Amino acid sequence: MTMLNNPSLKYKKFDSHLNLASRQWPSKEFTRPPRWLSTDLRDGNQSLPDPMTVEEKKKYFKKLVEIGFKEIEVAFPSASQIDFDFTRWCVENAPADVSIQVLAPCREPLIKRTVESLKGAKKATVHIYMATSDCFREVVFGLSKEETKEQATKCTKYVRELTKDDPAMRDTYWQFEFSPETFSDTDPNYALDVCESVKAAWEPSKENPIIFNLPATVEMTTPNVYADQIEYFCDNISEREKVCVSLHPHNDRGCAVAAAELAQLAGADRVEGCLFGNGERTGNVDLVTLALNLYTQGIHPKLDFSDINSVIEVVEKCNKIPVHPRAPYGGQLVVCAFSGSHQDAIKKGFKQTADKKRKLEEEAKKTGKKPKISQWRMPYLPLDPQDIGRTYEAIIRVNSQSGKGGVSWIILRNLELDLPRGLQIEFSKVVQRETEAKTRELKTVEIIELFENEYIVYPEKTEENLKRVNAFRLDQYHITTKDSGRRVVTSTIRNNDTEIKLSGEGNGPLSAFTDSLFRHFGETFDVVNYHEHSLGKDSNSLAASYINCRIGSNPPLWGVGINEDVSVAGFNALISSLNQSLAKGLLRLN
Amino acid sequence: MTMLNNPSLKYKKFDSHLNLASRQWPSKEFTRPPRWLSTDLRDGNQSLPDPMTVEEKKKYFKKLVEIGFKEIEVAFPSASQIDFDFTRWCVENAPADVSIQVLAPCREPLIKRTVESLKGAKKATVHIYMATSDCFREVVFGLSKEETKEQATKCTKYVRELTKDDPAMRDTYWQFEFSPETFSDTDPNYALDVCESVKAAWEPSKENPIIFNLPATVEMTTPNVYADQIEYFCDNISEREKVCVSLHPHNDRGCAVAAAELAQLAGADRVEGCLFGNGERTGNVDLVTLALNLYTQGIHPKLDFSDINSVIEVVEKCNKIPVHPRAPYGGQLVVCAFSGSHQDAIKKGFKQTADKKRKLEEEAKKTGKKPKISQWRMPYLPLDPQDIGRTYEAIIRVNSQSGKGGVSWIILRNLELDLPRGLQIEFSKVVQRETEAKTRELKTVEIIELFENEYIVYPEKTEENLKRVNAFRLDQYHITTKDSGRRVVTSTIRNNDTEIKLSGEGNGPLSAFTDSLFRHFGETFDVVNYHEHSLGKDSNSLAASYINCRIGSNPPLWGVGINEDVSVAGFNALISSLNQSLAKGLLRLN
Repeated sequence: MTMLNNPSLKYKKFDSHLNLASRQWPSKEFTRPPRWLSTDLRDGNQSLPDPMTVEEKKKYFKKLVEIGFKEIEVAFPSASQIDFDFTRWCVENAPADVSIQVLAPCREPLIKRTVESLKGAKKATVHIYMATSDCFREVVFGLSKEETKEQATKCTKYVRELTKDDPAMRDTYWQFEFSPETFSDTDPNYALDVCESVKAAWEPSKENPIIFNLPATVEMTTPNVYADQIEYFCDNISEREKVCVSLHPHNDRGCAVAAAELAQLAGADRVEGCLFGNGERTGNVDLVTLALNLYTQGIHPKLDFSDINSVIEVVEKCNKIPVHPRAPYGGQLVVCAFSGSHQDAIKKGFKQTADKKRKLEEEAKKTGKKPKISQWRMPYLPLDPQDIGRTYEAIIRVNSQSGKGGVSWIILRNLELDLPRGLQIEFSKVVQRETEAKTRELKTVEIIELFENEYIVYPEKTEENLKRVNAFRLDQYHITTKDSGRRVVTSTIRNNDTEIKLSGEGNGPLSAFTDSLFRHFGETFDVVNYHEHSLGKDSNSLAASYINCRIGSNPPLWGVGINEDVSVAGFNALISSLNQSLAKGLLRLN
Repeated sequence: MTMLNNPSLKYKKFDSHLNLASRQWPSKEFTRPPRWLSTDLRDGNQSLPDPMTVEEKKKYFKKLVEIGFKEIEVAFPSASQIDFDFTRWCVENAPADVSIQVLAPCREPLIKRTVESLKGAKKATVHIYMATSDCFREVVFGLSKEETKEQATKCTKYVRELTKDDPAMRDTYWQFEFSPETFSDTDPNYALDVCESVKAAWEPSKENPIIFNLPATVEMTTPNVYADQIEYFCDNISEREKVCVSLHPHNDRGCAVAAAELAQLAGADRVEGCLFGNGERTGNVDLVTLALNLYTQGIHPKLDFSDINSVIEVVEKCNKIPVHPRAPYGGQLVVCAFSGSHQDAIKKGFKQTADKKRKLEEEAKKTGKKPKISQWRMPYLPLDPQDIGRTYEAIIRVNSQSGKGGVSWIILRNLELDLPRGLQIEFSKVVQRETEAKTRELKTVEIIELFENEYIVYPEKTEENLKRVNAFRLDQYHITTKDSGRRVVTSTIRNNDTEIKLSGEGNGPLSAFTDSLFRHFGETFDVVNYHEHSLGKDSNSLAASYINCRIGSNPPLWGVGINEDVSVAGFNALISSLNQSLAKGLLRLN
């Protein structure tokens, strides 16, 4: 490792810590969702290698409205005709309760053009920005602190003149947003100074507060420092009730979600971001994660992600950037468990949840009241996948690191077969051999096929499969009872080539059937272990039998049988063991 | 929007806040990098749809060593023969200073097998775990608090017996790690209780402290709560100096990086995670982000990501999961700027950096000392891409949202042409038309081609291109001086079909040449604006001329000319304007 090159020397650590002596936010908790603003169509779109077409923008806008966004930043209308025209489309097509927001720099001709784009809107937000950090003022703009403040104040007055002060513009509900860009790298007292001046110029009301958006244009340091900055701003801005404190965190250090959450605890009212964290460089804060994080704290986010797959579809199609497989909530792998111990724990969690739900329903039946809501308490799954429209089928997936828990879950969810522990272990070895041979994940359908081939039983396909592998199946049978009370079972089993007539007796049908097998094959069929359960809920349901049967002196094998008739299910399980023994060469036809 | 369905009711908010009255971490700052553990080959690998092959694991292991990891969790050896065998390979191939760590549950036969896999290691860490939260104890294991503690303590003693207490195992430097799994959802006092008992069983020393790994197995709430839990643990565990507090945060709420950072401020010594955040569900904390976040705080992480592309290559190949384009530091889009204002700011930042560097070098020359390191101060780019082996070429990319800044940056970086502002604006309109027509990003090579076609100049390709578009080029010229001091320029220009002989006079070569054009074409050639600079650093370098020329009463057009001879560069720039006028039909050949 080369440590000679030490780039850390050329970086200066962030040194504007406020170190609030009396900070309150670390002891606060969420009590409500914030006001949400989506900037997908502005900050998100401008940072796409291939920005959206107009049709894609319209589709995206409609989806945002459907999700429930009431504030949507749609464009930078002074930058291009395309942006201007799209703003017009939004103005003409937005629901009355959705505020169309547009962005402009603090330059008067551009502000004029920007306000023009909003003409006739029912609700509109003019958003102007001016960078306030030393770095940006000095390197990019060459403006002093005083000049910057003056420019921001002058432009605020100009927006006011063109909007709420213009009688011709009275039909629009005007909101105003000012961003001291690069706020998180700005001396907090200077940011306050600029905002006080802007506020005095706008003269907000309690009913229609001015929006001060305090961006982490570039994430500079740990999110607790941003929270301190926000708390300080909230505590020190005058007429706090006339101010909506908004956040706009970028994700350069991977902490945008945390920054937005801690800063909300610190007093912020509103969050700007994008779905799945699109936006310049590492993206804006991910609004999907922020919203769904609230769910598990018992708070409704007032955004609807109950069909997250349809959201993903629109976002991926329009942005042409995939949602990462491990993105919180939306990623394809995040409601999956591959490891055996995780799968086992989840399986137990689901069982307990089902038991609890049944109990609550029974209680409710007795009292005649609606059943109580069963609280979610699931190992490894903080959110119920069904709440965001994801199925349980995706939860447990099987690779070479999986154990019996996952495999048996898949069999349970798909075939309703609740395999006994011994059979779980046996079958999971079959699966592990296959995953190691294939060096990849097995799909559900492959696991089912593997199960079917091993045990030669699968309700819908039995006949076909039995024929394919030339396995024995039960043709007909009769049970009679002797005077002694002992049962006699006569039956016919056949495969594609051979028909065998069997007859035997025992204390019950099963022992009579094993006796008949012994008489024909000359080997003992000892039932070592036996399980049985019904499939489905009605009385016509199928029965599943699992028999661990030792044939001769071979190691015992599990057989599986399914039938409407419990006896036949048992016979089929024994025939399943027989077929396996024949297939493995442990037994021969006479 | 359907708000009828309110899943938030079924979730209970996290209610085990410690609310430390005297918490210290929010005022702390980083002072050193943590001890790093990579669990890519264990937690990462177990959660891959297609786990690594043995060859991939070896390749990955070598890369981890190369990056500088000194602690690597490689497998779960009791789970499969493949894991056991790979542990053996690691033991036999690890450098002496790298500790091989393996994981086992608190079950004695599995621990025995686990320790066997480490036999002969120079340095090894046995890591055992036991879930301590109510949810896991009750739902998954059915164990009481007391039983859980007993099991953990008993197994710790067993590990001790098999490792450091066994004289036959003396050649290995044994480390021991215990994880109260689901720590972040565990009553903190109970977690301490279990850990005290485990510590007493292991009897660590100050030189070889016991590792208590305190996982956020599932991220339960905001990262400040996790930091409180860690600070509480650090403050209350006995013999703190004999304890290494380790973190293992998962990313379910998108805050794993923040959780790891705040918890380090709260006193933790060590972090477990994966490169680019691989691992169960949303992944383990991303060690690349954590490490590079330290750089910009002036701290060397003691991991080497100076060639991040080679790391990405190995990770993507072995995990078969792509690094997201917006992943901090590693993502393809994170050192890019598409928006015009961002590009403009970065361009200014680079110019200022270059100026500063030159100044520092000049100062150093005078004093004879090494030049001081120039501090990084760049709008929108917190880290110098070169520090992680990424090129500047990727920084600025051009789509329909880009402005003159980005386009002219690309021309500057690739052709060394420092376009004057007027030409920047003119050419950026050409580019915007093209990006809007193509509705996608333009590649650098496409922008260069566009420039070449518009101005018909590009050092290496001029002749070919001039021929292709049948444009005029300078064939030969003579400059003579009259007695009056006025210059006479006679020249020949030709395209594929036509040769034109020109002659004119003026105060200098350029005015003489425009006069000759006027005499031939019958239209005035007025130079409205003129810029010139050298290309390259030596004295034989080329000169670039930019001339804004009004031909007749047409709007002026920019022409660009390059030549070793400054006069010819100017003539070429005028010919460039001439060619454009002809191509646009503003001028006709007689």
